[in-house]
Amino acid sequence: MTLEDLTQRLRDFAAARAWEPFHTPKNLTMALSGEVGELISLFQWLTPEEATDWRSDPELEANVLDEIADVTLYLVQLANSLGIDLLAAANAKIDRNEIRFPPPKTVGED
Amino acid sequence: MTLEDLTQRLRDFAAARAWEPFHTPKNLTMALSGEVGELISLFQWLTPEEATDWRSDPELEANVLDEIADVTLYLVQLANSLGIDLLAAANAKIDRNEIRFPPPKTVGED
Amino acid sequence: MTLEDLTQRLRDFAAARAWEPFHTPKNLTMALSGEVGELISLFQWLTPEEATDWRSDPELEANVLDEIADVTLYLVQLANSLGIDLLAAANAKIDRNEIRFPPPKTVGED
Amino acid sequence: MTLEDLTQRLRDFAAARAWEPFHTPKNLTMALSGEVGELISLFQWLTPEEATDWRSDPELEANVLDEIADVTLYLVQLANSLGIDLLAAANAKIDRNEIRFPPPKTVGED
Repeated sequence: MTLEDLTQRLRDFAAARAWEPFHTPKNLTMALSGEVGELISLFQWLTPEEATDWRSDPELEANVLDEIADVTLYLVQLANSLGIDLLAAANAKIDRNEIRFPPPKTVGED
Repeated sequence: MTLEDLTQRLRDFAAARAWEPFHTPKNLTMALSGEVGELISLFQWLTPEEATDWRSDPELEANVLDEIADVTLYLVQLANSLGIDLLAAANAKIDRNEIRFPPPKTVGED
Repeated sequence: MTLEDLTQRLRDFAAARAWEPFHTPKNLTMALSGEVGELISLFQWLTPEEATDWRSDPELEANVLDEIADVTLYLVQLANSLGIDLLAAANAKIDRNEIRFPPPKTVGED
Repeated sequence: MTLEDLTQRLRDFAAARAWEPFHTPKNLTMALSGEVGELISLFQWLTPEEATDWRSDPELEANVLDEIADVTLYLVQLANSLGIDLLAAANAKIDRNEIRFPPPKTVGED
């Protein structure tokens, strides 16, 4: 399973249900934002330690897996509706970040 | 370039800058939410047609590519900090959605 | 009922339940973000016309009233935790916006 | 200055710039979400203590005041576009929360 396979599976899923007319860039950014809201609500009252230890609570574990999946599904569908290659866009951004945030020199380096 | 390659590149990027202590689940969900907010702000005043036609405005095009990349980078880093395989989680969710939202029968199907 | 009354009512509500330790700025911005996500999800698949006509669907009407209330409750509690007067901050921002976005001159104006 | 005064000031501000056609429920929930994203990004890398101590950093202080104002401005404009009285909706929600989350009995209470 690759990101491209996932994209194709989501295309087929939407086509089988005739959902494509709803999958516009505006609507999909809203859906993405809504799912990120559900994900963030799972961590809002937890201490940093409790959030890191999320696997120790089975209900929280299931909810986190569910919501991070929903975020991924909408991000992939948004990229599909925009015709963007997510991996290429992400890599190009890291290239820019390498320049914007140069790593500190290590000791002994010239 | 695969999603796994991207994850490794981001791990190396954070390690070279000693940023790992900041990359907790709580902080990364906040960062993800912030970037989705920047992405959504690019489309907020556009008509559905203008949003679909985002490539026709070079400044908008650059901003959309930049922000969707940032969303991807934080989602991948969040999954990394949580120890989640995004593709596996996304596929498992589509499996559940197949049951929750069965496709309509096509004409002539029994 | 004023905004100050609402703030006091929420202070009393949290105190009666010993919830104040959870109401930190970080946690409350997360809660605010989560509720905005629930609000946005109500409108995501609607056409602009259907969203404007939200009162015509009783279930949608109840949900919108519920979620916009939750957003308000967390915004007021966040302002309280930060010691910010929301009305004063909002007015000061409009003052800045008056300069940043001067209104167009009307016809005949010099 | 009351919340009603603020609402009227924002109505006048939008009218003077002919911005009303953009201020639909869908667009304003997107704008609200975008501003909450900017607010959350101010706190994302801070420790809970640093976030609580936000007034000690003048740049952070100015940014927090600016962003929480923007959130308020869009929430008020969204409520205006929906014809919702925010204070009434918020109070009605606290009434429901009083039932949903009854306070613990204090010692000696029957």
